[in-house]
Amino acid sequence: MSFIARFKIVKRRWLKIKIVIAPDSFKGSVSAFEAAMAIELGVKKSIPGAETLIVPLADGGEGTVDTLVAATGGKKNAVTVTGPLGSPVEAFYGVLGDGKTCVIEIAETSGLDLVPEKERNPLVTTTYGTGELIKSALAEGYRSFILALGGSATNDGGAGMLQALGMKILDEEKHEIGFGGGELSRVDKISLRDFDSRINESNFVIASDVENPLVGKNGASFVFGPQKGATPDIVRVLDKNLKHWANKIKEVTGVKLHNLPGAGAAGGIGGAFQAFFPSVIEKGADVVMDYTKLKEKLVGADLLITGEGQVDFQTAFGKTPMRAALAAKKLGVPTIIIAGSIGKGIESLYRYGVISIHSIVTKPMTLDKAMESAPELLEQTAAQICRTFFYMKHPSSLL
Amino acid sequence: MSFIARFKIVKRRWLKIKIVIAPDSFKGSVSAFEAAMAIELGVKKSIPGAETLIVPLADGGEGTVDTLVAATGGKKNAVTVTGPLGSPVEAFYGVLGDGKTCVIEIAETSGLDLVPEKERNPLVTTTYGTGELIKSALAEGYRSFILALGGSATNDGGAGMLQALGMKILDEEKHEIGFGGGELSRVDKISLRDFDSRINESNFVIASDVENPLVGKNGASFVFGPQKGATPDIVRVLDKNLKHWANKIKEVTGVKLHNLPGAGAAGGIGGAFQAFFPSVIEKGADVVMDYTKLKEKLVGADLLITGEGQVDFQTAFGKTPMRAALAAKKLGVPTIIIAGSIGKGIESLYRYGVISIHSIVTKPMTLDKAMESAPELLEQTAAQICRTFFYMKHPSSLL
Repeated sequence: MSFIARFKIVKRRWLKIKIVIAPDSFKGSVSAFEAAMAIELGVKKSIPGAETLIVPLADGGEGTVDTLVAATGGKKNAVTVTGPLGSPVEAFYGVLGDGKTCVIEIAETSGLDLVPEKERNPLVTTTYGTGELIKSALAEGYRSFILALGGSATNDGGAGMLQALGMKILDEEKHEIGFGGGELSRVDKISLRDFDSRINESNFVIASDVENPLVGKNGASFVFGPQKGATPDIVRVLDKNLKHWANKIKEVTGVKLHNLPGAGAAGGIGGAFQAFFPSVIEKGADVVMDYTKLKEKLVGADLLITGEGQVDFQTAFGKTPMRAALAAKKLGVPTIIIAGSIGKGIESLYRYGVISIHSIVTKPMTLDKAMESAPELLEQTAAQICRTFFYMKHPSSLL
Repeated sequence: MSFIARFKIVKRRWLKIKIVIAPDSFKGSVSAFEAAMAIELGVKKSIPGAETLIVPLADGGEGTVDTLVAATGGKKNAVTVTGPLGSPVEAFYGVLGDGKTCVIEIAETSGLDLVPEKERNPLVTTTYGTGELIKSALAEGYRSFILALGGSATNDGGAGMLQALGMKILDEEKHEIGFGGGELSRVDKISLRDFDSRINESNFVIASDVENPLVGKNGASFVFGPQKGATPDIVRVLDKNLKHWANKIKEVTGVKLHNLPGAGAAGGIGGAFQAFFPSVIEKGADVVMDYTKLKEKLVGADLLITGEGQVDFQTAFGKTPMRAALAAKKLGVPTIIIAGSIGKGIESLYRYGVISIHSIVTKPMTLDKAMESAPELLEQTAAQICRTFFYMKHPSSLL
């Protein structure tokens, strides 16, 4: 090999730049995948020779199924189930590329978006459809589940879901209770006799960021009831009913859900999983990062670009960009965040390995305009960021 | 000296970062000085140990006097002169820190902002006050002048200015013509006999970006007349009058201004300087850069941060950020531009040594809000840019 040829190889290695692009969705504008594609275009525009890996993320809420199915090369199965108001809805569960793991968004079956704003009332909304979806997947032979708990319309303590899976929840006259958080006050006896035995052969990863207990001022009803349509009076009824429900669960399982952290997730469905399912609760973003293999992909990267619609002091409380940055930091990879809108207190993100936070907004414009132009704004911003970031190291690789 | 002590010195040297901050004004929002101060705050926030040099710039239009006076430690003298409509206005000329060089903005004495929108009519507006200001400075003993030609309300070919300096511009009946571009058709004879002889003892640097000729479709009247309030009919009269005026100037000086590049600046005052004054024309931004000693200050800098309210494809045609970037490039210093609003075609700036262009807008917002929040937006954007830019070289110097 001639001296020139060797020199060229060395030079090319030195210029090798690896960038991992792992945004969450920009809510109301672009999905995580669309955001990642737009950012990649911008990166390639400024550093044509860069190696890019796109890893769309999600926070365990809306978009989790799509993100994990896409990341693993999986598929989606449609099932018609009972919606939160009792009428049928078509829902999907995802099957990951391993062919074994199902991923379910509770928002798909029992979600707030399925209930017209005027009809939102957690006294009547049920998680029955979520149970049906799990049952359908069990029948297909699946035993490994990821449940994304974000966005529920319900406050029924998971009772509907449990009923769909064969549990008998009876009143004093041995009649099964009906749908909704309003019915929980009638619970007299819980019978596990017909509860689907395949549950105990399975494992459930519960993707949830909620650490609230089941009852009390910090519980499901008081904290999340109002955004699901509960008036202050209804909130008090819901909380009282969940307390009664927790008492009954304690009688039959010995598990005391009342003050258990995370039991208040998704109107108490978090508690139902802890009491009756072989399950672990993990942060939504961490679950997604695990299954998308973000950490493996970050090895040897020069930069992680992540992002989300809104970035502010709350981002440091565990939102996707912060979780991704932390994973990168542990591998010595710096992170730059791209945001639609930057709020106060972003400096708190620096300790998680975040170098800087840049907005996609390139001039004064309305929110609608920014949302509509998000792909081109993301592309342009990513290009400028890469030019700024890599100039010091690789000035000659910039176009 | 111990090994540890020597190591510390070496380390400190390695971490030395020098940043030159040289923005233009953000029109309607912050002056160049205010912008530079805000950017400096952001830089210091992200890299407390950085050496910063602020060099507020201007383009030879509004802000030129303030910028040069501030940069050189000069002063301002007030003089009451004749405004563009004939009524008195208080105007300032600057004296640079050398105590010898005067800097005059024609906008101060004969500017469009001095004329209410409804009264704008280049048939009547005069440059007489500009001549008076020069005369006052000559009387104070000054012989070195910088004239910033941006923002005039006039199209009188500089006739008013020349009259104020003693030139006799006479009609067929030997009467002096009156104010405004409408009077030029009456010119019969130009007499230099009483023209202020101190002019020829002086030197004039004309700061002007306008390369238009005096007359014709690309001349002063057609190109700039409309924005000074001229209707299409008036534009034709103005152009015809300037042609007559140029003919008369040729008779007396031999100089043919008609198609001379730059003669069309400031309603033809550019031509008057070329015909009657010992003068050189220079780009506005370059004049400001010379007197603020930007080049000297850039020596050894790691980064130039410049900026302007609006940055787009036109910026590369010679606006301040582009001229500053070019000066930096020649010294091997990279430039980052901060803009209020980024338009199309910014990629054309890369060839002038611009690494990247970032907007100060951190979220969807109105123009009013962005203008009102400019200082804090500039600070935040500068901080984020420095963090992004210097991470590769000096990760440990970031706060």
